[in-house]
Amino acid sequence: MYKIVQIDGGVCAAEGFFADGVSAGLKANNAKDMAFIYSEEECEIASTFTTNKMYAAPIKHFRAKGEFKTNFVLINSKNANAMTGQAGVEDIDEVLASLSAEYKNVINPVMSSTGVIGVRLPKEKIIKGTKLFDLTAKEANAAASAIMTTDTFSKQIAFKVELEDGSSFSIGAMAKGAGMINPAMATMLCFVTTDANVSKEVMQNILDEVTVKTFNAISVDGDTSTNDTVMVLANAKSGAFHAEAFQEALFKVMHFLALEMVRDGEGATKLVTYNVTGAKDDTQAQVVAKALSDSLLVKTALFGEDPNWGRIASTVGASGVEAYEEKLSISFNELCVYNQGDLLFNAEMEIEAAEIMKLPSFSINCDLGIAEGSFTSYGCDLGYEYVKINADYRT
Amino acid sequence: MYKIVQIDGGVCAAEGFFADGVSAGLKANNAKDMAFIYSEEECEIASTFTTNKMYAAPIKHFRAKGEFKTNFVLINSKNANAMTGQAGVEDIDEVLASLSAEYKNVINPVMSSTGVIGVRLPKEKIIKGTKLFDLTAKEANAAASAIMTTDTFSKQIAFKVELEDGSSFSIGAMAKGAGMINPAMATMLCFVTTDANVSKEVMQNILDEVTVKTFNAISVDGDTSTNDTVMVLANAKSGAFHAEAFQEALFKVMHFLALEMVRDGEGATKLVTYNVTGAKDDTQAQVVAKALSDSLLVKTALFGEDPNWGRIASTVGASGVEAYEEKLSISFNELCVYNQGDLLFNAEMEIEAAEIMKLPSFSINCDLGIAEGSFTSYGCDLGYEYVKINADYRT
Repeated sequence: MYKIVQIDGGVCAAEGFFADGVSAGLKANNAKDMAFIYSEEECEIASTFTTNKMYAAPIKHFRAKGEFKTNFVLINSKNANAMTGQAGVEDIDEVLASLSAEYKNVINPVMSSTGVIGVRLPKEKIIKGTKLFDLTAKEANAAASAIMTTDTFSKQIAFKVELEDGSSFSIGAMAKGAGMINPAMATMLCFVTTDANVSKEVMQNILDEVTVKTFNAISVDGDTSTNDTVMVLANAKSGAFHAEAFQEALFKVMHFLALEMVRDGEGATKLVTYNVTGAKDDTQAQVVAKALSDSLLVKTALFGEDPNWGRIASTVGASGVEAYEEKLSISFNELCVYNQGDLLFNAEMEIEAAEIMKLPSFSINCDLGIAEGSFTSYGCDLGYEYVKINADYRT
Repeated sequence: MYKIVQIDGGVCAAEGFFADGVSAGLKANNAKDMAFIYSEEECEIASTFTTNKMYAAPIKHFRAKGEFKTNFVLINSKNANAMTGQAGVEDIDEVLASLSAEYKNVINPVMSSTGVIGVRLPKEKIIKGTKLFDLTAKEANAAASAIMTTDTFSKQIAFKVELEDGSSFSIGAMAKGAGMINPAMATMLCFVTTDANVSKEVMQNILDEVTVKTFNAISVDGDTSTNDTVMVLANAKSGAFHAEAFQEALFKVMHFLALEMVRDGEGATKLVTYNVTGAKDDTQAQVVAKALSDSLLVKTALFGEDPNWGRIASTVGASGVEAYEEKLSISFNELCVYNQGDLLFNAEMEIEAAEIMKLPSFSINCDLGIAEGSFTSYGCDLGYEYVKINADYRT
C-alpha cells in the first residue's frame, strides 16, 4: 500500500520549507533563542492549543485572525508573552509588521512564544533578531535548538511517505517540552511541516485524533501551560496525499516527539508507559492513566526505583473511576505483582521488580478487570533535579 | 453565650477517656507504634473516611458493623492493612477478639491502621502489643506519638467549652499526617474524643460540615490515601451540649490539626493559605484553591522562594473553571502583584514578594473577579526532602 521511511531534515524535510535559529540576546551566552519556519508556498494550517483559560497572547493573536493561510512562523524562547493582556497582542502586531516590511515574501506571519509568564516581550531585541534571518536556510537543527527552554536536547524528526503510484510526501517536525507538561492540548510547542496535498479540514481532523494519543497522553508535572501549541503547515508542494498514510506518519511524528518530551522531562531519568486496560470505558481508562502519570507518590517511587505497587493501587482507587481491589491486577513489564486480590509480592519479586525499574524505560500495567476500556499514557519520575530546576527557573 | 478555652490533655481531656501508646516492635528502636483510646462509657461515633475506592481493611471492617457504639479504638502505625482483601478484614477480627478476651470492659472495639500498603498485618506482634495496654492510663502524648509515620512531631489539641448555665464539655483530638495528604476525606488519621452529650446524627452532620473546610481543604502532595479516617467519639459524660459551640470547638480542633498536618507535610518548610475569592460559585473557588495547593510548579516556586505569579495565573487558568486574564488579581499577603490585566510586577516588588515568601507561613490570594464564590485551602512547598522521603519510604 504505502511505505513510511524515517529521513533527516526535521522541519526542512518536506519540499519548499526553510528554517533557521538565531541569537537575539534573549538567552545568555549568545545561545540561539529565535527561530523561523518559512515555506515558498502558502500553507493550510491545522492547529491545536492549550485548554488553559489564561492562554497566551500568540494564541489570542492567532485566533483573532480567523481563517487564513500563512507561509511564516516566528518563534521565540525565554518569554511566553502570557498574562500580558491586549498589550501582548499588540506587541505581536508590531513585531510581525516589522518582519513583513523586512521580507517581502512573508505572507500572514504568525508568532509563537515560550518562556516566563507575565513579562512583556522584549520587542526591540526580537525585531533586531528577525533581521538576522536568512529565508533560504535549511537549518532545522538550529531552529529546533532555538526553541528550547529547560530542554536538555533538541527534538525533531521526519518521515517520507512513499505511495504505491510512485508519488510521495514528507512530514517533518520539531518540538520543545521539558516543564509544565500536562498537555491538554500539550504544554509545549510543536511545529509540523508537510508537502502533502491535504485540505485544512482533513488535516485538522487527523491532528485532533492523533493529539489525544500522543501529546495529550504525556505528563511531566501535571501542570498545563498557557502556551501549548501544535501547528501543522501543509504547502501541497508534493502534490501527493493518502489519508491513512498521512495519519500514520503524523502519529509517528507526534508520538516520537511526545515521548522525547517525557524522556527530557525536567529532571527525568526514566520514561514509563502506563497501560491501563479492563476499565469500564476508554474515558475511565484515560482518567486512571493520567492519574498514574501525575501522582507524586508514584513518580518519587519511580525515582527511588522502589516497586511500591501499593501506591499504584492507591492512585487507581483515588482516581474516582469504577475500580475494585479484587478485580485489579498490576504488573511491571511482564512481572505481575498483584493479581485480583492475590498478594503475590515477596522479597524475590521485589528484587526482580526493582531490576525492571532500573531500566531507562519500562511499563506499568494496570488491568481493572471490569470491561474493555483502555488507554496508554506516558510519564517520568520526579527527582531532586526537577525541584532544583523549578525552584530556580526565573533566576 | 459560651466560651471556648484551649486546655491540655489531647484525647484524654474529655471526661472518662483514657489513652496510651506502646511499642510492639513494628517500628525500629522500640519507638511507640500502637495506641488505644478507651472510654469508660460507650460512645456514639461520627466518622468520615477516604473516598479512595481501594479503602483499607479497617474501613471495610468498620462499615461492615453497621450501626454500633464502641468504647475502644485500637490504632497501629507501620502497616496500613490496605489491598489485603478479605484476609485483611479477618486479621482485624482476630486481633480484636484477642483484645476483647484480654480486657473485659472493652465493647465493640474498632481498629485503625496507617503505614505501608499491600502487606498483611503482623498479627502476632500486634496481639502481643495489645497485652501491654493499661486502660487506666491518661497518656495522650504517648498515643499521639505512636500513630506517627513520617510525621516529625505529634499532633494533638483540646478545648473546653463553657456554657452560660455553668455546664461545660470538652473536645480533644490527635492526628497523624505527613504524606499521601490530599484529604477527600483526608490522607490521615484523626481521633476526636468528647464528653459532650451529643446525638450521633447531630455529631455526624457537624463533622461533615467541618471536614470540608479543614481536612478536605489541605494538600501535601495531591495523593489521596487508602486509610483516611476521622472518628469522633462522644461518651456524653459531661451531660452538657450546645450545637453552635460544639461546631465551633470541633472546627477549632480540626482546623488546628489540619494546619499542623500541612506544616509537617513531608519535607515542607512553609504553610501557605490560598484564599480564592470572586469565583462563579464556592465549588469553582474550591477547584481553584485545590489546584493551587496541588500544583508542582507552584509548590517548587514556594520552595525556591520565587514570587513566580505567572505560575499561579497559569494554574488558575488550567483548573478548568471560569476565569479571565483581565478580571484576575493575585497578591502575596497584602502585596498585589497582578491586578486585572495590570502588570504591576517590577524589580522592587519582586524583592518585597520574595521577602514574604521567606516567612514560615503566608497567604496567596486570587480574586477571580466574577462573582462571590470563595474557598480557602492550605498547602506547603515541595523540596528535596519530599523527594528523599518518598523515594525511600519502604526501605
